[in-house]
Amino acid sequence: MTKRIDFQVDPNSYRHWRIEYDGDVANLFMDVDEKGGLFDGYELKLNSYDLGVDIELADIVQRMRFEHPEVKAIVMQSGKDKVFCAGANIRMLGGAAHAHKVNFCKFTNETRNTFEAAGEDSGQHYISAVRGACAGGGYELALACDYIMLTDDGSSNVALPEVPLLAVLPGTGGLTRVTDKRKVRRDLADVFCSLEEGVRGQRAKKWNLVDEVVANSKFDETVQARAKEIAAKSSRASADNGVMLTPLNRTFEENGSVTYSTVEVEVDRDKGLATINISGPKDAALSSVEQLTQEGAEAWVLRCARELDDAILHLRLNELELGVIVFGTQGDAEAVAAHEQFLLDNKNHWLAKEILLYWKRVLKRIDMTSRSLVALVEPGSCFSGMLAEILFAVDRSYMAEGEFEGDNRPVAAIRLTDGNFGSYPMSNDLTRLQTRFLADPSQVDAAEKAKGEPLNSENADELGLVTYCFDDIDWEDEVRIFLEERTNFSPDAMTGMEANLRFAGPETMETRIFGRLTAWQNWIFQRPNAVGENGALQRYGTGIRGEYDMRRV
Amino acid sequence: MTKRIDFQVDPNSYRHWRIEYDGDVANLFMDVDEKGGLFDGYELKLNSYDLGVDIELADIVQRMRFEHPEVKAIVMQSGKDKVFCAGANIRMLGGAAHAHKVNFCKFTNETRNTFEAAGEDSGQHYISAVRGACAGGGYELALACDYIMLTDDGSSNVALPEVPLLAVLPGTGGLTRVTDKRKVRRDLADVFCSLEEGVRGQRAKKWNLVDEVVANSKFDETVQARAKEIAAKSSRASADNGVMLTPLNRTFEENGSVTYSTVEVEVDRDKGLATINISGPKDAALSSVEQLTQEGAEAWVLRCARELDDAILHLRLNELELGVIVFGTQGDAEAVAAHEQFLLDNKNHWLAKEILLYWKRVLKRIDMTSRSLVALVEPGSCFSGMLAEILFAVDRSYMAEGEFEGDNRPVAAIRLTDGNFGSYPMSNDLTRLQTRFLADPSQVDAAEKAKGEPLNSENADELGLVTYCFDDIDWEDEVRIFLEERTNFSPDAMTGMEANLRFAGPETMETRIFGRLTAWQNWIFQRPNAVGENGALQRYGTGIRGEYDMRRV
Repeated sequence: MTKRIDFQVDPNSYRHWRIEYDGDVANLFMDVDEKGGLFDGYELKLNSYDLGVDIELADIVQRMRFEHPEVKAIVMQSGKDKVFCAGANIRMLGGAAHAHKVNFCKFTNETRNTFEAAGEDSGQHYISAVRGACAGGGYELALACDYIMLTDDGSSNVALPEVPLLAVLPGTGGLTRVTDKRKVRRDLADVFCSLEEGVRGQRAKKWNLVDEVVANSKFDETVQARAKEIAAKSSRASADNGVMLTPLNRTFEENGSVTYSTVEVEVDRDKGLATINISGPKDAALSSVEQLTQEGAEAWVLRCARELDDAILHLRLNELELGVIVFGTQGDAEAVAAHEQFLLDNKNHWLAKEILLYWKRVLKRIDMTSRSLVALVEPGSCFSGMLAEILFAVDRSYMAEGEFEGDNRPVAAIRLTDGNFGSYPMSNDLTRLQTRFLADPSQVDAAEKAKGEPLNSENADELGLVTYCFDDIDWEDEVRIFLEERTNFSPDAMTGMEANLRFAGPETMETRIFGRLTAWQNWIFQRPNAVGENGALQRYGTGIRGEYDMRRV
Repeated sequence: MTKRIDFQVDPNSYRHWRIEYDGDVANLFMDVDEKGGLFDGYELKLNSYDLGVDIELADIVQRMRFEHPEVKAIVMQSGKDKVFCAGANIRMLGGAAHAHKVNFCKFTNETRNTFEAAGEDSGQHYISAVRGACAGGGYELALACDYIMLTDDGSSNVALPEVPLLAVLPGTGGLTRVTDKRKVRRDLADVFCSLEEGVRGQRAKKWNLVDEVVANSKFDETVQARAKEIAAKSSRASADNGVMLTPLNRTFEENGSVTYSTVEVEVDRDKGLATINISGPKDAALSSVEQLTQEGAEAWVLRCARELDDAILHLRLNELELGVIVFGTQGDAEAVAAHEQFLLDNKNHWLAKEILLYWKRVLKRIDMTSRSLVALVEPGSCFSGMLAEILFAVDRSYMAEGEFEGDNRPVAAIRLTDGNFGSYPMSNDLTRLQTRFLADPSQVDAAEKAKGEPLNSENADELGLVTYCFDDIDWEDEVRIFLEERTNFSPDAMTGMEANLRFAGPETMETRIFGRLTAWQNWIFQRPNAVGENGALQRYGTGIRGEYDMRRV
C-alpha cells in the first residue's frame, strides 16, 4: 500500500454512489463498483465497501451540507437488487495491515457520526430504506441514520453477523448504537449479535432494530412519503443556493509534505515528525453574509478548515510512522478572532452556521487522531478562536516566553474568544476548556474573563492554558529533547495512553464508540483467533471455520 | 501454570502483609516476601506484586469489613525502606500467558475498587502513606485510596512509568483515576505519565497527584493524626465485635468441579462449559440481628455469597477454556426472599448492611466475568431477590414453561423483591433492571408492581424478564443447541461483544476502567512492541530498550 490515498473526490468522479435530488429530499443510491477497490486483491461484491467507497460517502455528506442546503432528508438505499449492503469488504480486511484496518475503521466511524451530526446540528436527516440483505457494516450504516425502514418481503433483514461469522466485532459503532441509540434490551442484543442470519420483518421492529416495517408492495412509496414528512418537520432554515466546495489548492511532495493555501505540512520521516503550520487570514473579516456566500469556499474560515481536515487525514492514512504532529500558527490573532466573530454574529445564516459546525468536526478529527499532538506557541503566532482551540485539543503545549533574540515577530500571545466557550464541543459534549478544568470549573470562568485580551506566557501559565513556557535560551533545547523522546516511545502505548487521557469526564455514544468499542475491536484485530493463519478472517469464504484458542481473557 | 490458584487465604498464612490494629485505625504494612511468588521464575523484589500478593490484599479488605467493624481508617504503608511499592512484577508479566495477565489485571482492579467501596459504602477509609518509590501499580494502589500522603524527603515520589519504561499502560485503573478521580489537567497527566522518574514533593501536590505532602521528620506522626481525624469523621456506625470469616467448606475435584455447601460447580472441559447450581436456604429466615451475629459466616446469606464469589474466581483463573457459565438455582423462592428481607429490614445493623454490600460486589464480579453467562430457570428453581438478580446479570436466560413431564418439582417461577430495585447497583450505578429497560423505564415500574408475586413463564416473558421460554418438548434441544453454538464461538469476539453489550447507558469510573482502559491495555498486551521477542517487557532490565514498529494505529 504505497500509493497515496486521496481524500479529495468529486461528484463527477464517484464510482460507487449516485444521488437524485427531489426538492428537499435527496435519494442516495449505494451501487458499489466491484472493480473499483482502492487497492488490488479484492472485489467489492454485494455492495461491500473499502476506504475508497467511504471517502466518497464522506464527501457526499459534506457536500450535502454546503452545496445542497435545500436538502432536509436523505434516503440511503441500495442501487442493487437483493442486497442493501454487505458491510466492509472481508478480503480487504483480511489483507490489510493492522494500522490500515484501524485507521479505516476510524474514518468510517467518523463518517457515520456525520450522519447523526447532520440531523442533529443541521436538520439534514438520514433515512435508511433497507431492501435486501443489510449485514454488518451495512446495518451499521443504517444504524447511523435517524430512521430505519425495512421492507417486509420475507427475506430482507438486518444482521450483525461479525461475531459468529468472522470472530470480530461490529466495530463501526454497531454494538454501541444497538445498546445506546436503539437501546435494544441486552439479552435480545446478545441474541441478535449471535445470529448469522439476522432478524427480519416485525421481529426487527419489535426488538427496535428498525423503526418501521413496510409491506414490500408499498415500500418505495412509503419511503418517499416518510422522507417528505421528515423533511417537513426538519428544523433546518430555508437556504438559498449552496456554495461549491471547489478543489483544494495543494501540492504534495515525495517526502509526504503538502502545501495548501493556509496550511503547510512538513513531514520529517527520519524524525517521525510532522509539523502543521496554519496561516491566519490575510484579509479583513467579511462584512456581510452576501460576501460570505460569494466568497464561498474561498473564504479563509472555510478554506482553512477544509485544508486542515485534508492534512490530518493525509497524515493519518499515508504517513503511518509519524508519531508526533506539531501544530503552529502564524498571523494576526485579532484577524482570526474577527473572522470567527463574523460567523458567530451570523450563525443564524445557514452558511455561517455550517462553517462553525465544520470547525467543530475538524477539531474533533484532531481529538481523535492517534498521534501525539503538540502545539508550539511561538512569536508571531495567532492561536485565537478556533485556532486557540487546537491548544486544548493537543496533548501538551509549549509557549515562548517574552522576546526572542533576533526575532522581530510579535511576542507570543494567546487570545480567547466566545468561540472557545461553547462553539466547538468535544465528543464528550463538553468544551475543551471544561474538559481541561474538570477539577475546578472556576478556572473556566477565569479564562472566560480573560476573553479578548492578548495573553502572554505569564498570563497563559497563570490561567493554566499551556503546559510549559520557555524563554529563548531554553526554548529550542527543551522542545527538541521532548520531541526526540516522544517520537521514540512505543506507538501503541502512546495510542492507548492518549485515548484514555484525552477524554476525561462524561461519556457519550461517540466517546464510547471510539474509546470502548474501538479498543476491543483493535484488540480482537490482533488476536490469532481472528487474524491468524487459521483465524476466522483468513478462512472466510473457504467453508471452514476458524480454529480458535479457547482461552478466555 | 497448572497448579490451582486458591483464593481462600487466612491471616495466619499471610506472607506479604501485616496489620497492626489501633482502635479505629488499622496500619497495614506491605512487606512482600521476595521468595513468595505464586509461580516460579521470578522474585518479588522491591515490594512488587503478583496475583498471590493481591489475593492476600483482597482478603484483608474483605476481613476488615466483617472481622473488624471497629476500623474506620486503614493506613496503607510499606514495611520496607526506600520503596513503597514497585507495582506489578514485570518478570511475572513478561512470562505470563495473555489470559493469565488479563485475568490478573481484572482481579487487581476489582480489589482496588473495594478500597473505594469500603470508604463510600461502609466508612472504612483507605489512606496511603507514601515513603520511598511509589511506581506503576504501586501508585495505582495509592490512587485507589481515599487520601494520599507523600513524605517530602527529597526522593520519595509517585510515578506511572509504564509507558516510557515498559510500553504498556498503567492499566490497573491508573490512567482513569488520574483523569476521573484526581482530575489531573490532561496535559499535566500527559507529562506525568511520560516521566520515568515521576513527580515528588510540592509539585505532586500542585498537580493533585497526592492530597498532602509532609516533611519527612513529621511524616509518621502526621499520618497517624490524619488517620485518627479521618476515622473520627467516618459515617460508619459503631459496631460490636466482628464475625469471623471461617474457612469455606469445599471440595475440589480433579476435573475442576467444586462442591460447596450451597454452591455446586460442575465443570465439563470437553464441552467448554461450567454449571453453577445454587441452593436456596434450608432454614427459616433469621429472626434477630443477635441471631445473625451469632450465625455469622454460617448464615445462608453470607455463606452463599462467599461460596459463589470463590466459585467465580476459581473458574476465571483456573478454568480458562470454559466459554460458558450456566447458572441454575434450586430451592424455595419464598425462603430466599425472606432471608433477603431480613437483611433489608435490618440494614442499619452493620452486619446486615455488610452482607447486602457483599452481594453487590459478588454480583458485580459476575457482571465483569468474561465468559458467556446464561441462566436456566427450571422447575424447582428459586430465582428470587439476590438470586433473581443473576437473571439480569447474565447475557441471556431460558425459562421452563409449565409442567415438565415426570418432574414433580414446582413449575418454574421468578420472584422479584425490593432488593431488585436498588440494593445491588451495577458498576454503571444503575440497577440491572434499569439497565435492561433503558429504552422504556416504565418497564421497570411494571416489574416493580409484580414484586412478591410468583411469576410464571408467561408473566416473566410479558414483563421482559427472560429471553426465551420453552416447554418440556423443546427445552432440552433448544438449550443444548444454544450451548453447543455458544461454546464454539471465538472467545475473543465473545469477550469483546459482552464487554460492550453488558454496560449500556451511563459510564462511571469503574465502567471506564473495565471497559475503556482494560480494552486498550489488552490490545497493547498483544502487540509485539510490548510483548514480542524484542518488545519492551521482554527487554526490561537488560538495559536495552524495546524495538518498536513505529506505525501508529
